[in-house]
Amino acid sequence: MIKALLFDVDDTLYDSTTLAEMARRNSVRAMIDSGLPFRDEQELYEKLLHIIKTFGSNYPKHYDELLRYLNIPWNPKIIAAGIVAYEHTKFGYLKPFPGVIPSLIRFRKKFRLGVVSNGIAIKQWEKLIALGLSHFFDVFVTSGEAGVEKPSVEIFTLTAEKFGLDPRECVMIGNKLDVDITGAGNAGMETIWFRREENAHLKHEGKGPDYIIESFFELIPLIEKITQ
Amino acid sequence: MIKALLFDVDDTLYDSTTLAEMARRNSVRAMIDSGLPFRDEQELYEKLLHIIKTFGSNYPKHYDELLRYLNIPWNPKIIAAGIVAYEHTKFGYLKPFPGVIPSLIRFRKKFRLGVVSNGIAIKQWEKLIALGLSHFFDVFVTSGEAGVEKPSVEIFTLTAEKFGLDPRECVMIGNKLDVDITGAGNAGMETIWFRREENAHLKHEGKGPDYIIESFFELIPLIEKITQ
Repeated sequence: MIKALLFDVDDTLYDSTTLAEMARRNSVRAMIDSGLPFRDEQELYEKLLHIIKTFGSNYPKHYDELLRYLNIPWNPKIIAAGIVAYEHTKFGYLKPFPGVIPSLIRFRKKFRLGVVSNGIAIKQWEKLIALGLSHFFDVFVTSGEAGVEKPSVEIFTLTAEKFGLDPRECVMIGNKLDVDITGAGNAGMETIWFRREENAHLKHEGKGPDYIIESFFELIPLIEKITQ
Repeated sequence: MIKALLFDVDDTLYDSTTLAEMARRNSVRAMIDSGLPFRDEQELYEKLLHIIKTFGSNYPKHYDELLRYLNIPWNPKIIAAGIVAYEHTKFGYLKPFPGVIPSLIRFRKKFRLGVVSNGIAIKQWEKLIALGLSHFFDVFVTSGEAGVEKPSVEIFTLTAEKFGLDPRECVMIGNKLDVDITGAGNAGMETIWFRREENAHLKHEGKGPDYIIESFFELIPLIEKITQ
């Protein structure tokens, strides 16, 4: 019997892909506005993506590295312009996907709710808090705390343990087939793939999802069907 | 003849005191809301001030230290709640004082404009950019770059040099008697003390201000009088 619903955070509870793209595009635009000697926003955006890929998305000095990569002397005004534009854009996009809040309010009556997320604990909590979702969840496991990342079976079994539940009593909802769905499936959980349009072509290699949704509005009737 | 106007940033171009107090009070409130076992917001706020005083205002882990000081185990949800509340509050308060923007637009026609600020270059630029003021200033000197802090005469003479001017051709406008006014005065600049109500009782020890204003609306007629 299903007793807990587990959620991924990024691109499951909110649109992290759009947030990152828009925040980075606006940071590039602001750096040009602040004097970066470049006019081609698209080209500069692609160079920034290269820096982010090289140093990792949690590296704190992407804009310093971008200037170095472009052979432009370190310039605090340009770097600050990038940071401020990123932060202000983030503020506008850090909103739950449509249907998330009503779903969680409904689920909260019958299930325990948790989050399983790769990433740094404080950073992931910051997102849930800014999203206004932090109070819905009883259990929150990040790879930073667990010591292993999804799709490791251990991070899912650890989450079930924190609830005092068997993994078979948990449903995992996530956007990534390999990371969220195959991992949780291997741990014995039921799985729901939140399939966003751009991922509709993806095929799973390991264990596939038990169910597929394309919006949170489909989640309430699906959970009611599964748990009848 | 006056050719450049120099400004301090914090508590001169915007209300940094109110921003910091409100952001810290909201961070304390959010930490309690997120489970910090404390009910007295005022007491917790005072403990946070103690931590900030101990570690310095630019230390990046005030909330981690606050939990340690309270003997509460490290908790990423509570720490994240403090950070998010601080950032969101900051966003609302980072606005120029009334009269700042029209004054700068007016001054920009006749003078070169600069900033002389103690602090870290990127952090101070972030403020000017978020305030929407960054494009007004030709010269921006921070203590981080200059290697000395206000009230050292050197930071003021360096600023004048960056304009290619003699210090006697510059007016310094700032809120701190000792840091902004005496320092710039010793460097040979004319000085205008932006005296906020809570500082009205202060007396200067070194060189006093040449002029006093209590709002930016007084600055345009004063500058016109001085430079006639």
